[in-house]
Amino acid sequence: MLKSTSFESHPLHKILHPKSIAVYGANNNILQTMGTIQMLNLIDQGYPRENLYPIHPHLDSVLGLKAYKTIAAVPVIPDLAFLVLPTQAIPQVMVELGQKGVKLVIMVTAGFREVGDAVGEAKIKKIANKYGIRFVGPNCIGVFNAHLDADHPERILNTTWSHYTGKPGNISIASQSGTFASHIFIMAADIGLNINKSISVGNEANIDICDCLEYLRDDPTTNVICIYVEEVKRGALFRKLVKEITPKKPIIAIYMGGTLGGAKAVSSHTGSMAGNDAIFDAIFSQAGIRRVFSMREFLLTAILFSHFIPQGVLPKGRRIGIITDSGGAGAEMADLGSRYGLTVPEFSPELQIKLKTHLPSTAGIRNPVDLTYLDNPEVYFDTIPHLLSQSGEVDAIVSYGAYGADYFQYGSFGTEMISSPKTKGMLQQYMDFMYSVLERSKLYPAKYNIPIAHVNLMGARDGLVPILREKYDLPVFMFPDEAVQTMAHLIEYGCYCHKLLQTSLQSME
Amino acid sequence: MLKSTSFESHPLHKILHPKSIAVYGANNNILQTMGTIQMLNLIDQGYPRENLYPIHPHLDSVLGLKAYKTIAAVPVIPDLAFLVLPTQAIPQVMVELGQKGVKLVIMVTAGFREVGDAVGEAKIKKIANKYGIRFVGPNCIGVFNAHLDADHPERILNTTWSHYTGKPGNISIASQSGTFASHIFIMAADIGLNINKSISVGNEANIDICDCLEYLRDDPTTNVICIYVEEVKRGALFRKLVKEITPKKPIIAIYMGGTLGGAKAVSSHTGSMAGNDAIFDAIFSQAGIRRVFSMREFLLTAILFSHFIPQGVLPKGRRIGIITDSGGAGAEMADLGSRYGLTVPEFSPELQIKLKTHLPSTAGIRNPVDLTYLDNPEVYFDTIPHLLSQSGEVDAIVSYGAYGADYFQYGSFGTEMISSPKTKGMLQQYMDFMYSVLERSKLYPAKYNIPIAHVNLMGARDGLVPILREKYDLPVFMFPDEAVQTMAHLIEYGCYCHKLLQTSLQSME
Repeated sequence: MLKSTSFESHPLHKILHPKSIAVYGANNNILQTMGTIQMLNLIDQGYPRENLYPIHPHLDSVLGLKAYKTIAAVPVIPDLAFLVLPTQAIPQVMVELGQKGVKLVIMVTAGFREVGDAVGEAKIKKIANKYGIRFVGPNCIGVFNAHLDADHPERILNTTWSHYTGKPGNISIASQSGTFASHIFIMAADIGLNINKSISVGNEANIDICDCLEYLRDDPTTNVICIYVEEVKRGALFRKLVKEITPKKPIIAIYMGGTLGGAKAVSSHTGSMAGNDAIFDAIFSQAGIRRVFSMREFLLTAILFSHFIPQGVLPKGRRIGIITDSGGAGAEMADLGSRYGLTVPEFSPELQIKLKTHLPSTAGIRNPVDLTYLDNPEVYFDTIPHLLSQSGEVDAIVSYGAYGADYFQYGSFGTEMISSPKTKGMLQQYMDFMYSVLERSKLYPAKYNIPIAHVNLMGARDGLVPILREKYDLPVFMFPDEAVQTMAHLIEYGCYCHKLLQTSLQSME
Repeated sequence: MLKSTSFESHPLHKILHPKSIAVYGANNNILQTMGTIQMLNLIDQGYPRENLYPIHPHLDSVLGLKAYKTIAAVPVIPDLAFLVLPTQAIPQVMVELGQKGVKLVIMVTAGFREVGDAVGEAKIKKIANKYGIRFVGPNCIGVFNAHLDADHPERILNTTWSHYTGKPGNISIASQSGTFASHIFIMAADIGLNINKSISVGNEANIDICDCLEYLRDDPTTNVICIYVEEVKRGALFRKLVKEITPKKPIIAIYMGGTLGGAKAVSSHTGSMAGNDAIFDAIFSQAGIRRVFSMREFLLTAILFSHFIPQGVLPKGRRIGIITDSGGAGAEMADLGSRYGLTVPEFSPELQIKLKTHLPSTAGIRNPVDLTYLDNPEVYFDTIPHLLSQSGEVDAIVSYGAYGADYFQYGSFGTEMISSPKTKGMLQQYMDFMYSVLERSKLYPAKYNIPIAHVNLMGARDGLVPILREKYDLPVFMFPDEAVQTMAHLIEYGCYCHKLLQTSLQSME
């Protein structure tokens, strides 16, 4: 009870759920001004227009809404002010906001510490402190919340200039990079990334990554936390928080600045001296944080976790079972599995005999299970994964070849043949059968605690993929290595949690 | 002259350019029979129907074409026979083909050495030798040739069951995995993969990977050779061939079987004992072959090479310049560059001053060049890459943020605003200006010998991407790590070639 109150009174909670917003820096030039694109996105992604108050010294209306010359003229006290202004305008505006009684600010404006202006940054911090203002930024891209309003799920708070294409999800991001917090929105639907909240903290002059961790720790709709870090200001608190969080929620982290190239790039990015790679590596590994090295690995790992963490599916060991309809892909997954520290155990004779009864004579049954050309969705989605899950011989499964009817793509002749009523009926029958199989098999991961990652080379073009992702809660990747690499992360996280549990059980004995 | 004759008389040349094909194993069930899907693909991808001769013991017609009971009944001697038959039917059919005078065969049929039947495989080899038949397979997926007929570029030879979605390219593949030779077709257009020829060699009972290398070495339309290897039968010849090829054409290789997991998967795939990882590593590195570890790396590296090898662009050193419109992405590319053994040099004061005059005050100029929010395609595509290319301070460039007008995607309100005649005109003007810039800047890589790889997170959804790839010959990837990793491969290949050249110049002195 206390927790919930403290959670809802957290400044980030209010910043992510503002009832009204004053927007500085938008005009009517929708192609060239960053602030305008951001206000347009606010409107377009469903923030109620009637609660937006554009502030502009000259314009009477901005993007069809009545504009105000100053914050003083606004008829309400907005919950939040959003600033995309020239650097030198910021101090005066902050004073006016303080006088009005606005308590929360997002400061997109750059040109402070990251270009060497520590004095300017100190000045706005002082003003904020005087008026009790909490703020995100400066030099950030803003915030995002797909769970803005439970009563109106279509309403999304998106202050960034990237249009979000995914669905409301359970992955939340706190990032010292605006790219990692927002550019990723534009590909979200294609890769199956469903975000909950995203906070670009910029220079962290007031609210920092530790505030974000504290908030996301308690946020009930966040199951997976992703952080992009270049520097941590409150080191002791950071270590305390991540150790506290990871037994309950996984943290996926990208740390930039560890290599010579990265360190130099970072110091010209947020203006901070980059920390030491080895120190961060140690902190991450002590706390069971999964460290990743690229945006791709960051997002795809989050996707895999987002499917299995809410189901409580956490592998206890490093043995993977591989299902494939193609030898080369199976060999690659086995090889990469070994490279990522996993094992690909040869199945017991008993299990091999069971597998053999369902497969053609040319199939591989020792692990990988190579179905070769066997076009039966029941065997692929149910029989084989079920046998492996029950066996006790694997801790996780990766599976190559999840294709739907869209796979049958042809030129004109094939399309003509495939669109005959008879063939169409057969295809529909095939898909209906596949869905009935999936209805049954979707329960296996939670039942046996065996996660499964699928690969479908067609990507978002195959209509089956979004159905697998959404209706049957299965992660689907485009390339075999992505399934194995992300699964290795889930396995390592699972092993960390199980080891913690064992240690604490032993200490209770 | 001699070379050209020998090239055209190579059995693979004839297999890849057959004037007529007898097809065994197709019927009219276009959903379930592998052979039927493959024949359908042959027709659909443009192989002339009138030159296809389906052979079927019972049917009078197959996919609308007259069928023949036996090969003896076919009115011509087909150049090639394509077999998707039950294993036990193969020997008799091979005898009949030999008696008819058919000299080339593709044997898709599995069930030989890979399931332990060395006797069956020896038997068909003996029949082939008796009749002078050369064949690909067994246990393969067939062949592909996007350059089948110079007079009819729309005609593609595709015997596989994957529909090819790319354009005729300069990348050729020889593969002991059918997946790596053909599944990749279905995503080709999305990732910008343009294939020339692809040969799935299967068990290599007759034609092997060395034959492919010999042929692709001499093929004038092949600029980049990709191989998937699990085992090499003629080791000495392989070593000789690859050493001979790489100074002229790069080879990108994936070797499977090196790890415990991979080795076991391989032995159940093609039935071969996998070779030793360290041995292959040594052979590859001595010959300047770029070794990759996943299908993704395999294809994306080939894509980067396919743009720059024909232009003769080969970096001489490991210094990369980074251009970005976002700090986090720039930091990631710098960090990964260092991890891949590249350097990210800090630019000289002279170059920094030159860069500064074109950029906002908040921009980074030390490397990465971080444009921050600067929406000017001339600066992004021309000024900055031109300055870096001329400077002599970098050997290659990676660039994040290549967006077209499609980036401006909105909901209903934004779409309404953006579709006003005025805004549409502005967007068109913006794109026209971008294209005029690209027309000028596309010449820089060849002029300065500085390759450039772009990143666009929208992927194939951004209409600019295919234009950059096709019209301006620029490789575009979806994620930052892909640009850096593939560029590291091009750099290592370039360094290998330059070192070879230096050594041979020194020996001539």
